[in-house]
Amino acid sequence: MRIYDVILKKRDGYPNTKEEIKALIDGYVKGEVPDYQVSAWLMAIFFNHMTDEERSNLTEVILNSGERIDLSSIKGIKVDKHSTGGVGDKVTLVLGPIVASLGLTFAKLSGRGLGHTGGTVDKLESIPGFRTTLEKDEFFSIVNDIGIAVAGQTANIAPADKKLYALRDVTATVDEISLIASSIMGKKLAVDSDVIVLDVKTGSGAFMKKLEDAKALAIAMLDIGKRHGRKMSAVVSDMNQPLGNMVGNALEVKEAIETLKGKGPDDLFELTVAIAERMVILSEIGKPEKAREMIHDTIKSGKALKKLKALVEAQGGNPEVVDDPERILPSARYKFEVKSPYEGFVESIDAQEIGISAMILGAGREKKEDGIDPAVGVEVLKKVGDRVQRGEPLAVIYANDINKYETAERRLLGAYRFSKTAVQKLKLIHEIF
Amino acid sequence: MRIYDVILKKRDGYPNTKEEIKALIDGYVKGEVPDYQVSAWLMAIFFNHMTDEERSNLTEVILNSGERIDLSSIKGIKVDKHSTGGVGDKVTLVLGPIVASLGLTFAKLSGRGLGHTGGTVDKLESIPGFRTTLEKDEFFSIVNDIGIAVAGQTANIAPADKKLYALRDVTATVDEISLIASSIMGKKLAVDSDVIVLDVKTGSGAFMKKLEDAKALAIAMLDIGKRHGRKMSAVVSDMNQPLGNMVGNALEVKEAIETLKGKGPDDLFELTVAIAERMVILSEIGKPEKAREMIHDTIKSGKALKKLKALVEAQGGNPEVVDDPERILPSARYKFEVKSPYEGFVESIDAQEIGISAMILGAGREKKEDGIDPAVGVEVLKKVGDRVQRGEPLAVIYANDINKYETAERRLLGAYRFSKTAVQKLKLIHEIF
Repeated sequence: MRIYDVILKKRDGYPNTKEEIKALIDGYVKGEVPDYQVSAWLMAIFFNHMTDEERSNLTEVILNSGERIDLSSIKGIKVDKHSTGGVGDKVTLVLGPIVASLGLTFAKLSGRGLGHTGGTVDKLESIPGFRTTLEKDEFFSIVNDIGIAVAGQTANIAPADKKLYALRDVTATVDEISLIASSIMGKKLAVDSDVIVLDVKTGSGAFMKKLEDAKALAIAMLDIGKRHGRKMSAVVSDMNQPLGNMVGNALEVKEAIETLKGKGPDDLFELTVAIAERMVILSEIGKPEKAREMIHDTIKSGKALKKLKALVEAQGGNPEVVDDPERILPSARYKFEVKSPYEGFVESIDAQEIGISAMILGAGREKKEDGIDPAVGVEVLKKVGDRVQRGEPLAVIYANDINKYETAERRLLGAYRFSKTAVQKLKLIHEIF
Repeated sequence: MRIYDVILKKRDGYPNTKEEIKALIDGYVKGEVPDYQVSAWLMAIFFNHMTDEERSNLTEVILNSGERIDLSSIKGIKVDKHSTGGVGDKVTLVLGPIVASLGLTFAKLSGRGLGHTGGTVDKLESIPGFRTTLEKDEFFSIVNDIGIAVAGQTANIAPADKKLYALRDVTATVDEISLIASSIMGKKLAVDSDVIVLDVKTGSGAFMKKLEDAKALAIAMLDIGKRHGRKMSAVVSDMNQPLGNMVGNALEVKEAIETLKGKGPDDLFELTVAIAERMVILSEIGKPEKAREMIHDTIKSGKALKKLKALVEAQGGNPEVVDDPERILPSARYKFEVKSPYEGFVESIDAQEIGISAMILGAGREKKEDGIDPAVGVEVLKKVGDRVQRGEPLAVIYANDINKYETAERRLLGAYRFSKTAVQKLKLIHEIF
């Protein structure tokens, strides 16, 4: 097979066979197919897209380029979740304990934050002592013991995706649904969970700015997962403002704990419950019409919070964080209120700008190599639709470096748009597939 | 400027500015822009095409990447011709002497053959002693002396095109009109002739198989040339069968000489006159309505033939070739008739297959490094529309290597299609722009 012909077929609108995709990607990973042929192929895909079958085959080739995490020795129904990334998205911290306390198995590999979005691993590491680098045996033993563990990705998962993504990033071929879907699912399927629920974000703080694109991505990923024998569901959720109020690592852990205590923000609670509900239903551990009740009960009874405590303890963190987060979690030296220059209603918030403000303060990384400061971040007090008086605080900045404060505040203020007339609250969940 | 943004703009359907095209191409030639970005950009051009202005700018950047041949020290109106390549295309050998004998200046840089198409330089070199590698001074002095010289391209013309073409060739981005047009014109404009007449071939033996593509290419090249201040014309001519009867270097020189003696095949004569007519008209050396008469006269009077003789002599060849080509030109050891297996009419001839037959015999090169045999080739006796009896010769094979004969014959026969009912002759000139 000539790689030239693989490109030509795609260029001329014909689907590539599994063998063709495999030859191209495997050859690329081995260094036998040059990057200039791959980038031409990627650009042809940008224009001609992929069929469901091609997309599934590309995912399989990406998946098989690296290690796979075999969970067969772990008992129970393994559930997994994936978020396409947002600002203030601490759903995993709330969801994991809930579903684990309901008897499901939550063996989660998580990533670190980059750019304006945070990562679960960074958030958990803000708990003193919490270790996210676990040996495979330890990870498995914790999961078997308490039904939940959250670790950073250390295995060599989907190296083809790393190479492809780096190439797409410099050749303007990132934003194509099939390429995005196969990139995410190629990594996701490396963990052999039974049930996967996707949280596809849409809006100003999401990768998918448009709802229709987010829906298309959700549908593409669901199809790939189903073709690979997984029980799949997807929630398309709004990211036109941060989820919850806290943006920053320790701040988000605190908010997650409060949510498990029934005192968290409504949007975070609602989205977490929607995802948990899909997991309960797909796992068939309860009647679908009872799923919501089961979730509410496990929170009310304190079982979910207890599960979080067990998780923190098992992974070396100080379990007292659950009882008294303020005391245990690192806190920032300075706390500034960002006051509203207008009177009226919050019309919109550019969530990405809020994420960048937090990043500037040190809560996130601009480049992969950067370190982060667990204590700093932003608390969003006013969200879309809220009434605000002139001089009333819109947000709170938690900073350790006084020099970074001004830039962060400027971006924060720039993220807000106001209206003189009343503004409707944003719809949180756009679609559940 | 980020090259990423240049690709993104093209991908999203916006035209690139001259500065953007220059940054990308110049950077590529210098090795600063990686080939994987260039190939992604080329594929985006394949899908989104280029505006007339972009195309002209790309041509200019390609042109300026190398040396330019300044003809200002040469007297007279400089005319140039370019053929997109065909089988049996010896027009330059007939045309040059005609227009030079009419007082126009024909300072021609020509190429060698590759694949199924021949090259003027190879053809002329079949004349014993003929040198096509000329120092600039010698080339200029011959042109000033006799109004015509034909040399191989030695200067470093349009290196950007070489690099781009090599990349297009392996990334399925060759067949896009703007890329083809700027590649040809980027080289063509390096010689600062006043008048350029293009011969754009279409059909089975041409790069442009479809007439509409050939017309579009002609229009694109005309536009580029005019934007660069040249007087332009284009003839779109048929290449659904070889031009004339001879395919092979010495054989074609012989046919060209016969044509200048008024004894050549009709199609070769007709096409040459059509191109010469455009040159006479654009040069304004005679009234348009008299152009054809002038051309016929210069042939009839023997002036054109005498000009060819002067050219051969000036470039070191044996001028007697003009009087007695059979004796002077190298001839093949074996001569085989290829007999018709059918009775009827020639319905079609795959000209490319005829070219490949000649190449197999040694008349052409498969790879650039290959040598050629000037004596061998194919004589096509029956053309489309001709009546043929079973056993009557369709073609003659001139071979020096008996082992190559069978393959060449098989391909030759495979190139012919026959019909029981009468078939119309092919139209030679489809359009003159």
